[in-house]
Amino acid sequence: MDANEFREFGKAAVDFVADYLENIRDKDVLPSVHPGYLHKFLPEVIPEEPEDWREVMQDMQKFILPGITHWQSPNFHAYFPTASSYPSIVGELLCSGFGVVGFNWICSPACTELEVIVMDWVGKLLGLPEEFLNCHDGPGGGVIQGSASESIMIAVLAAREQMVRRYHENEPEVSESEIRGRLVAYTSDQSNSAVEKSGILSAMPMRLLASDSKCALRGDTLRQAIEEDLALRKIPTVCIATLGTTGTCAFDDIEEIGKVCQEYNVWLHIDAAYAGAAFCCPEYRHLMKGVEMAESFNFNVHKWMMVNFDCCAMWLKNADLLVQAFNVDRIYLQHRFQGQSKAPDYRHWQIPLGRRFRALKLWITLRTVGAEGIREHIRHQIHLAQHFQSLVSSDDRFEVIGEATMGLVCFRLRGECGSSRKLLDRITERKRIFMIHGTIHGKIVIRFAVCGRDPQVTDIDFAWQEVQSSLKDINYIPPETSDKICERFSKEITLIESEERLQ
Amino acid sequence: MDANEFREFGKAAVDFVADYLENIRDKDVLPSVHPGYLHKFLPEVIPEEPEDWREVMQDMQKFILPGITHWQSPNFHAYFPTASSYPSIVGELLCSGFGVVGFNWICSPACTELEVIVMDWVGKLLGLPEEFLNCHDGPGGGVIQGSASESIMIAVLAAREQMVRRYHENEPEVSESEIRGRLVAYTSDQSNSAVEKSGILSAMPMRLLASDSKCALRGDTLRQAIEEDLALRKIPTVCIATLGTTGTCAFDDIEEIGKVCQEYNVWLHIDAAYAGAAFCCPEYRHLMKGVEMAESFNFNVHKWMMVNFDCCAMWLKNADLLVQAFNVDRIYLQHRFQGQSKAPDYRHWQIPLGRRFRALKLWITLRTVGAEGIREHIRHQIHLAQHFQSLVSSDDRFEVIGEATMGLVCFRLRGECGSSRKLLDRITERKRIFMIHGTIHGKIVIRFAVCGRDPQVTDIDFAWQEVQSSLKDINYIPPETSDKICERFSKEITLIESEERLQ
Repeated sequence: MDANEFREFGKAAVDFVADYLENIRDKDVLPSVHPGYLHKFLPEVIPEEPEDWREVMQDMQKFILPGITHWQSPNFHAYFPTASSYPSIVGELLCSGFGVVGFNWICSPACTELEVIVMDWVGKLLGLPEEFLNCHDGPGGGVIQGSASESIMIAVLAAREQMVRRYHENEPEVSESEIRGRLVAYTSDQSNSAVEKSGILSAMPMRLLASDSKCALRGDTLRQAIEEDLALRKIPTVCIATLGTTGTCAFDDIEEIGKVCQEYNVWLHIDAAYAGAAFCCPEYRHLMKGVEMAESFNFNVHKWMMVNFDCCAMWLKNADLLVQAFNVDRIYLQHRFQGQSKAPDYRHWQIPLGRRFRALKLWITLRTVGAEGIREHIRHQIHLAQHFQSLVSSDDRFEVIGEATMGLVCFRLRGECGSSRKLLDRITERKRIFMIHGTIHGKIVIRFAVCGRDPQVTDIDFAWQEVQSSLKDINYIPPETSDKICERFSKEITLIESEERLQ
Repeated sequence: MDANEFREFGKAAVDFVADYLENIRDKDVLPSVHPGYLHKFLPEVIPEEPEDWREVMQDMQKFILPGITHWQSPNFHAYFPTASSYPSIVGELLCSGFGVVGFNWICSPACTELEVIVMDWVGKLLGLPEEFLNCHDGPGGGVIQGSASESIMIAVLAAREQMVRRYHENEPEVSESEIRGRLVAYTSDQSNSAVEKSGILSAMPMRLLASDSKCALRGDTLRQAIEEDLALRKIPTVCIATLGTTGTCAFDDIEEIGKVCQEYNVWLHIDAAYAGAAFCCPEYRHLMKGVEMAESFNFNVHKWMMVNFDCCAMWLKNADLLVQAFNVDRIYLQHRFQGQSKAPDYRHWQIPLGRRFRALKLWITLRTVGAEGIREHIRHQIHLAQHFQSLVSSDDRFEVIGEATMGLVCFRLRGECGSSRKLLDRITERKRIFMIHGTIHGKIVIRFAVCGRDPQVTDIDFAWQEVQSSLKDINYIPPETSDKICERFSKEITLIESEERLQ
C-alpha cells in the first residue's frame, strides 16, 4: 500500500468511525450472533495475493460489525465505561503513525518526557499528594501502565520484593524461600478479580477480607487479619484497597486502612480503577481521604476520563523500590543519559520492555477537552446516574441498593432474586440495553453503569423504558410484604454520610 | 469535539502521518534534544479551557517531533525493527474507533473470534505444528499478547504453577513453599533481558547458561545444568530457548534442547520474538527444527511482520494449563456462552483483564499485504542485510562476526574494542544513522539491524557511507597483524553450515 492509498483508506476509516459513533444509538447494543459465527465467513488461510482495502472494509461491515458489542453506545450499561473520545482516537492514530517504542529516553525523548509531564498534569488534576508527582524532589512519580491489572500486579510484586529484602536484612538466618512462603497479602471480598489474580501470579496468598454493610473494607478488619497472621508467623506484606469497587462502587476506608498499614509496615496500594477519575472534582476527594498513606495508586484514565484504552495512570511514592525489584540491565539497553530524573527509564517501571507512545493521546485529549471539560464530563455522568436512580426509586416494585455516588446504580426487584435474574435475562435477550448483575450480601442485584462516548438524559430514559417493557414480559408479581433487603443498609449509609457532611 | 471536527482533525492526522513517513529520510534519525528539553515548552498544569486541535497539532510539530527518534526511518538500525505499515495504522484507528474491550466472548464476539481465526492464519503461515492451532482438536491455541516479555512471563508462570501442582500431587508431604523454593528455570546467557526479568518476577532463579561459540544454547549444557540442580534437590521447571537472540541473532538448538526438556519433563518455551517472522519462508524453517517439542512459542508480529506494536503472537500446546493457573472467575465475568471452543475466554490467557481489538489490525494487514507479500518483505530485508555484510566484508579494516542469516549484521573494527566503541560514538553523534553495540565473547561489536517501514538498497549504501565518513573522523589505525577475533569462530560456522546443507 503506498502513501496515496493510505490517505484514501485512512480518511475513509475516519469517516467510518465518525458515522459509526454518530449512529451508534440506532443499533442494538448487543450483537445477534452465535459462538463460532465468524468461522463460516472467513477463509482458513491468509490470501496469497494482496486484496484491495475497499474489499476489506466491506467485509468488516458485513462480518465484523454484526459481531461487535457496542461499548461506546449510550445503551451500554455493563461493567464500567471504557472511555473513548474523538481527540483520543486521533491521538492513537498519531501514536501508530510515529511507531516508536519508548522503553528508554534515547528511544524517543518526547515519549518519556511527555509522559512525565502529563502524569503530573493528571496527578494535580486529581489532587494527589505531591510525593506522588514527578516534579517533586523525592523518589516518587507517575507512569502510564496498560491496565489496572498490571498496576496492581506491579505494586504487589514490588511490595513482595521489598519485603523479602527487608526481612532478609533483619533476619539473615531465615532463608529466602522460607520468607517467601510466609508472605501474605490482603484485600476485600469486593475487590476486582485482578487483585486475586495478582496474588496467584505473585505466589502470595491474597486474603479476601469481609467488607462491612456498605461493602467497604475497614481498618479493624484488616488489623484483625494482620494480627491473626502474625500469630501464625506469617509476614503481612501488602494491602490492596479499592476506591469504587466493581460490584457496587463501594469505597474502602483509606484513612483507617492506611493507619493500620503504617503501623504494621505493610505496603498500601489503592486501586481506584473506575472512581479515581472523579477526584478531579473537589467535592469527591473526601472519598480518598488518607491517600497520602498509600505507597502506590492507580486509576484507569481509559475508564472515565475520555482517553481510549489502554491508559492506566499509576503513581508511586518511591519508584526506586520498583526499579530495584524490576531492573535487569543489559548492555544493549544502556545509553548515556541514563539516570536523569526528568528522563526516567520507564522500562523498569513496568512488566514488558516495550511501550507505546500513550502519553500522546492523553496530552491531545487533555488539551482539547480542558480541565473544566473533564470535570463537566464526570459531573454530567454522575447526574445521569442519579437521574436513573430517581426513576428506579419512583417505582415501588424496585429497590435501589445504597446510593449512586458515582455513575453506577445497583437495583433489584423486590422479593426473590429469581425475579431480578429473569428480568435481566429478558433485557439481555432484547439486546437494546446491556447490563450485568452483581451480588451484594448474597443477593443478586442489577448493575446500571453510565457508559458510552456521549450519554444523554434521553438515553437514560430509554434504558428505564426498556427495563419497564421487559418487566411486562416476565409476569413479575411483587411480594405483598415490604422486604427490601437494603432498608437497614440504606439507613446506615444516610447516617454516615450526614456525619461526613457535618465535618 | 464534535463529529465534524473529528473528521477534519482525523484527516489532517492521516495526511500528517503520510507526510511524516514519506519524508522520514530527510530527518536525522536521532533527535538533537537534551534530557528535560520538553519541560521548558509545556505548561505545568492542564489548561482549564479546551484548546483548538490545530494549536495542538502545531505544538506537536514544534515540540514533540524534535524529540522523536525515528524508528520507522530506514536509517534506524538499532535494536530490532518495530513494524509499521499503512494498513496496520488504519487498523489501529478502526480499533480505537470501535473502542471495545474484549475480555470475554460477549464483550464483542468478533473480537475473540477474529483473533482465533487470524492466529491460525499466522500459525499456518509459519508452518507451526498443528497442535498449536485453535482449529486443532486438542487443547492448544494461539492468542495475541502485548509483548514478548509478557508471553515469556506467562509461560514461566504457567510452567511454575503446573510444576507446583504436579510435584505436590506426587509428593504431598512436601509443603508448597518448599516446592516453590526449589524450582529453577533455564535460559542462555544470550537471551533477552525480559527472560531474566520473568525469573525475578516469578521468584524463580533463572540460570543463564553458557552459549557455544555460535552464541547458541546446546542440549548438553542444559542437561548438565539440570543434573547439577537435581543433585542439589532443585526442581527443574522451565527452559526458555531463543530463536534469534537480541545480541547477535543466534539460534538455540531446539532439537537438542527439546529432547532434554522432554526427558526431564521441563516446560520448553521458545522466544522467537524477532526471527519467528522469517519462518513464513520455508527456507528458514530448519532453524526451528524441534519446535514440536515446545509447550509454548511466541514471536512479535510487531517486529518483523508489518503490524504495529503491540501485537505479539503466542501459541500453547495446552492452553488449559494456562487457564488453570490464571483463572479467577467472578460473577460479573460470567456469561452464557462460556467454555465454547471457538470462543475462548482470552482473559484467562493473559495477565491483564482488559484487551484491545488487536486482531483487527492483524487481519487488515494480512489481507492487504497477502502471504506472498509478507514473504517478499522478509526476503527483501534479509537481502539488504547481506548487502550490508558484503560491504563490510569488502573493507579490510572491518570484520563481520558470524554471518547474517536474518536482518542483523554484527561487525567490528579490527583491533582493540575501543576503536569500535569510538566509531559507534562518532556515528551516534552525527545522528544520521542509529546503531547500538552488543558483546560477543567479551568483545564489543556493532549491531546493524535492517529496520524502518520501507528500507531500500540505497539506504543501506547510505549507512555504509556514513560508517566510512565517521571512521575518517576517529583516526583509526588498523593493527598490523591480522587479529580477527572471529576467525576460528567463522570457520566453525562455515563447517557446521555446510554439514547442515548436506543433510
